[in-house]
Amino acid sequence: MKLYSFGPGANSLKPLLALYEKELDFESVFLNPAKFEHHSDWYKKLNPNGQVPALEHDGKIITESTVICEYLEDVFPDQNPLRPADHFERAQMRIWTKWVDEYFCWCVSTIGWHRMVGNMVKHLSDEEFEEMVAKVPIHEQKVKWRRAREGFPQELLDEEMRKIGHSVKKLEARLQESKWLACDHMYTLADICNFAIANGMQNGFPEFVNEKDTPAILDWLGRINERPAAKKMFANQPSEFNRKKD
Amino acid sequence: MKLYSFGPGANSLKPLLALYEKELDFESVFLNPAKFEHHSDWYKKLNPNGQVPALEHDGKIITESTVICEYLEDVFPDQNPLRPADHFERAQMRIWTKWVDEYFCWCVSTIGWHRMVGNMVKHLSDEEFEEMVAKVPIHEQKVKWRRAREGFPQELLDEEMRKIGHSVKKLEARLQESKWLACDHMYTLADICNFAIANGMQNGFPEFVNEKDTPAILDWLGRINERPAAKKMFANQPSEFNRKKD
Repeated sequence: MKLYSFGPGANSLKPLLALYEKELDFESVFLNPAKFEHHSDWYKKLNPNGQVPALEHDGKIITESTVICEYLEDVFPDQNPLRPADHFERAQMRIWTKWVDEYFCWCVSTIGWHRMVGNMVKHLSDEEFEEMVAKVPIHEQKVKWRRAREGFPQELLDEEMRKIGHSVKKLEARLQESKWLACDHMYTLADICNFAIANGMQNGFPEFVNEKDTPAILDWLGRINERPAAKKMFANQPSEFNRKKD
Repeated sequence: MKLYSFGPGANSLKPLLALYEKELDFESVFLNPAKFEHHSDWYKKLNPNGQVPALEHDGKIITESTVICEYLEDVFPDQNPLRPADHFERAQMRIWTKWVDEYFCWCVSTIGWHRMVGNMVKHLSDEEFEEMVAKVPIHEQKVKWRRAREGFPQELLDEEMRKIGHSVKKLEARLQESKWLACDHMYTLADICNFAIANGMQNGFPEFVNEKDTPAILDWLGRINERPAAKKMFANQPSEFNRKKD
């Protein structure tokens, strides 16, 4: 089993942490986003969308971070399960993983691109940049690269910040009433997929995530970071931003 | 078991058709979107988001159309299964249902709102309209109602039409190579969830879906419409647009 990823952050973190939680053996292949390795020809042969993460298993490629997580549960259901056995609770888990993919990850991602990704491509000439964009297979991603370089419209950034504020309130309210997101008694893929986006927001978005406004979120982030699987993952897997320049 | 829905169209069609395919007994409760029944107090007690469909089962409410479909498979796995047993194929099914929810349904929905929903509220005074909007729980839905009434910006409509064109090409390419969406040998939730959005596009979007450009989509729509479950559903369940005025 082989996981192609950017390391333990954002969507790549979801299957990475699931693999560590399930104590499964796998080979980790890092792609360097600053070198656009996910848009290289060899990788697009594996995933024509040019996106990470992707899992290679039994000679096949599974894409989409949340789908990979469910796949690991389907294939290894009894190995440290991360899905509730109860059907109603499992549905709640899916509502939370779906919400990450449809709402929460997008607003946080735009601000991340605004703050960091734009700088990654500012040193390129217009020609070099357009050559790179030509390799991006998804139209919406091409548009996002161009906007990140030019600067996102302020109106869009304001709207994304509003959505982040709304998301944080929603998470805090849920974690005030339940130890974990899908159900009180079990840590599930709902926690892993939300943690993938929320971890670090206490530093990146202290106006939203802080001791005063979101004690339950901070407690929940702390509990996940203290899990042996999370510690092992962060110790063993370089993140896309702190690994040695290669 | 009780399903709250707008009848056999769009997201409401997904669990409706799944219930018919699985030959499960259920009570059907229709809400009238023109009367904003989904934003009434009694319904928001069931689903605080004020959205249909919602399933009542074992005294609990399950929301989100795709999650309801997976829930029905979890609870009744052996009753006319709509999920592949093979793990890789099941992952493909989830990639297709996810794509409907994140991409395909949104562009088609905006054009639907532009063409039909705007007219539903044009007869209201500004005051009556804002009174109605005040009952909509989700911010983005409030914005959509206001935009539908004022008229969506042309730039947005153009972008949604571009996405519809892209979506149709993607579906056609897949159905050229595979009888059903997730895998060649089995009709699954991937087909049901895409059918929910694509059925009728040969009439509403003939510039995209027609004999010349999309023979495989038309064949696939025809095969689903000919299924006994689909025939029974359309015969028994009034749609939101052709039911008697109540």
